[in-house]
Amino acid sequence: MFSKEEKESVYKVIYKRRDIRSFLSVPISKDIIHRILNAAHHAPSVGFMQPWNFIIISSEKIKEKLAWAADKERRALAIHYDGERETRFLGLKVEGIKEAPITICVTCDPARGGSHVLGRNSIPETDILSTACAIQNMWLAACAEGLALGWVSFYKKNDIRDILDIPLHIDPIALLSIGYTDEYPEKPILELANWEKRHPLEQLIYENKWGENKHQGD
Amino acid sequence: MFSKEEKESVYKVIYKRRDIRSFLSVPISKDIIHRILNAAHHAPSVGFMQPWNFIIISSEKIKEKLAWAADKERRALAIHYDGERETRFLGLKVEGIKEAPITICVTCDPARGGSHVLGRNSIPETDILSTACAIQNMWLAACAEGLALGWVSFYKKNDIRDILDIPLHIDPIALLSIGYTDEYPEKPILELANWEKRHPLEQLIYENKWGENKHQGD
Repeated sequence: MFSKEEKESVYKVIYKRRDIRSFLSVPISKDIIHRILNAAHHAPSVGFMQPWNFIIISSEKIKEKLAWAADKERRALAIHYDGERETRFLGLKVEGIKEAPITICVTCDPARGGSHVLGRNSIPETDILSTACAIQNMWLAACAEGLALGWVSFYKKNDIRDILDIPLHIDPIALLSIGYTDEYPEKPILELANWEKRHPLEQLIYENKWGENKHQGD
Repeated sequence: MFSKEEKESVYKVIYKRRDIRSFLSVPISKDIIHRILNAAHHAPSVGFMQPWNFIIISSEKIKEKLAWAADKERRALAIHYDGERETRFLGLKVEGIKEAPITICVTCDPARGGSHVLGRNSIPETDILSTACAIQNMWLAACAEGLALGWVSFYKKNDIRDILDIPLHIDPIALLSIGYTDEYPEKPILELANWEKRHPLEQLIYENKWGENKHQGD
């Protein structure tokens, strides 16, 4: 069903995708935005509940409020670090909401699909897992479109609900800033900043039971 | 960075991916399994915490135990449906664990990365969201490899922990059955079974505020 070249393109986008926090002010065409949202909408969801909504934020006024909420949370978190770790934390650029032409708030509605969503009765959090799959689809599609995307996870959910008029039972899962960039690193920026390293894959794989891996320690 | 053909391949895999519950017994090469796990491992994760592990289950004995746990949960859930909905529920094939040559249990370790994972202090569930992104990467890679994948979400987590010796603090997020298939539908099987329909994308998009969409109701 997939040629060698098509398969390689899929792996290419998976490996090239990065979390970006610096954006150019170049606008994004409506067609591209529609395509990446349609990619998100074709993610798997438990019981086909499709619990997501997408709020496209382009208003400068609202972007400023979102950036304020993210910065407030960043400053609050900095208080929990001390010494060298605090300095390094405050040196990290954690979002680019004001620079990016748009930020998309992806939400999850736990009530979508009614009271008996197939599969969600066993594992309730499958609704937010489905929403994360939609985000990953959107991210890969954006990357293939030549766009950069940054997942902002520094905020208090009720700040975001207040700013975007989101009902209290709806979960604002993520703020995704999207735009073109001229700073696209080969490796994750937290790896380049020596904040964390990528674990060797072999150490994460077990066979048939937790903790068993015949290739480990060879 | 991506040619037109490469971009089209990315959208193709996003649209072709399906949740499959029927598998052939044809084995999967170790190289392919390694490639799809490496795709999973290159998912985004909050604070680069990489909270996932992958337990590859090929033992017939353990697959039988997993299938038993899934069937027990299916029968328990059926009790909550009645009449026509119960008949339709029991008519759905919800997993193919015994048929598929392998099932991969993807877990999330909330303690990975220590006590101060960047970003996870604001939104703790970003660890399981990251794990869902890894699952979506694996799913797309498997699809591009010509493989079928089925996400089983019918189980009690402690049954799976018992069967696979998973520590109590580790979250068995998903069981993913993987194999070749000769039943690959064009549309989601819950859509073909008239269980749910795909929502029109336009109804899921808002602009700048929840509930606002100038294109809706045109």
